[in-house]
Amino acid sequence: MRRYLKDPAAIYAESFATVEREARLDRFPDGMRPLVTRVIHACGMVEVADRLAYSPDAGEAGRQALFAGAPVICDCEMVAAGIIRSRLPAGNEVLVTLNEPGVPELAQRLGTTRSAAAVELWEGRIAGAVVAIGNAPTALFHLLERLDAGWPKPALILAFPVGFVGAAESKAEIAADPRGVPFVALKGRRGGSAMAAAAVNALGGERA
Amino acid sequence: MRRYLKDPAAIYAESFATVEREARLDRFPDGMRPLVTRVIHACGMVEVADRLAYSPDAGEAGRQALFAGAPVICDCEMVAAGIIRSRLPAGNEVLVTLNEPGVPELAQRLGTTRSAAAVELWEGRIAGAVVAIGNAPTALFHLLERLDAGWPKPALILAFPVGFVGAAESKAEIAADPRGVPFVALKGRRGGSAMAAAAVNALGGERA
Repeated sequence: MRRYLKDPAAIYAESFATVEREARLDRFPDGMRPLVTRVIHACGMVEVADRLAYSPDAGEAGRQALFAGAPVICDCEMVAAGIIRSRLPAGNEVLVTLNEPGVPELAQRLGTTRSAAAVELWEGRIAGAVVAIGNAPTALFHLLERLDAGWPKPALILAFPVGFVGAAESKAEIAADPRGVPFVALKGRRGGSAMAAAAVNALGGERA
Repeated sequence: MRRYLKDPAAIYAESFATVEREARLDRFPDGMRPLVTRVIHACGMVEVADRLAYSPDAGEAGRQALFAGAPVICDCEMVAAGIIRSRLPAGNEVLVTLNEPGVPELAQRLGTTRSAAAVELWEGRIAGAVVAIGNAPTALFHLLERLDAGWPKPALILAFPVGFVGAAESKAEIAADPRGVPFVALKGRRGGSAMAAAAVNALGGERA
């Protein structure tokens, strides 16, 4: 059996040093670097840094919202499970509506997915919230439609839906027209709950 | 706003058709194909199929274990959150010991990570279980050490730890010497909870 590193602090230090060495983080604004670092760390792929679209103020906007007590709204339970509660700076609520009663019926009535229907239940909480989408392209599309229809704006949209149908397209849509909302999006098919949660964890981790 | 696919059945069909078209699944044994398909679907990366190491009987071993009622043991809450309970064929228990009381102290005493210490608590449940590791290389290393020390064998190890320190190494270790346990491992740095959960979901989904 080969030897391996067991000390958690040493593992973290070596991980982040590797990201630092390989990812050319100096191309990102200061406020984005912790987020980029943690997203890369969560997926083991330095090259995702090349595919990030973002507004220059995204890191700062998310950080300010969290420190002001904004809720984190997630599209699925896996994102919520990845958010380290002790890193949230204001005991922020973490909200997932996907499994609320009535969502399957609402999805049928609206002719869409459960993930998109669950977005309807965000209406009363969306103003100033941090939105973390790590699974469903239709959730991101549906949120953009509601913003177009006049919903109040969230503080930040972390757009990491994943997969072969709609993921690349929904992220291209927000990157092309973020509707005046600060955002981070990983272009293309890649994404996932771990990256979305890591982005949230980065925001809460350090004061600006 | 561009048009997008909203019908869940159509989205699934198109997703899986894309995977089928791009991933050359015919190189895999029948019993592995649903697992490979779902792992690719979970991460949006067809090319992970090129990096899978596995025992030929892995799919079948996992399926049999789940249908016989084996528990699923996960290294973190995110993996557990990604397992679709309705797809588990025997109301199988999904077990995560990472946040059990005493684990931080055990980690300190053993001089290792919490993830590795949490593996100690698997001892009474490991025989015949399906193990899904989607986060911590040290959990996989620790499990292999315990198997070397004489622990009973699980039915299957799904090895998807992720990251820059130990992930590639721990998966190379199990691929080089699986200790007589059927396994699936994604070689290299990539991995994650979504892939580990998707692998479990594939096993429960269809009878052999």
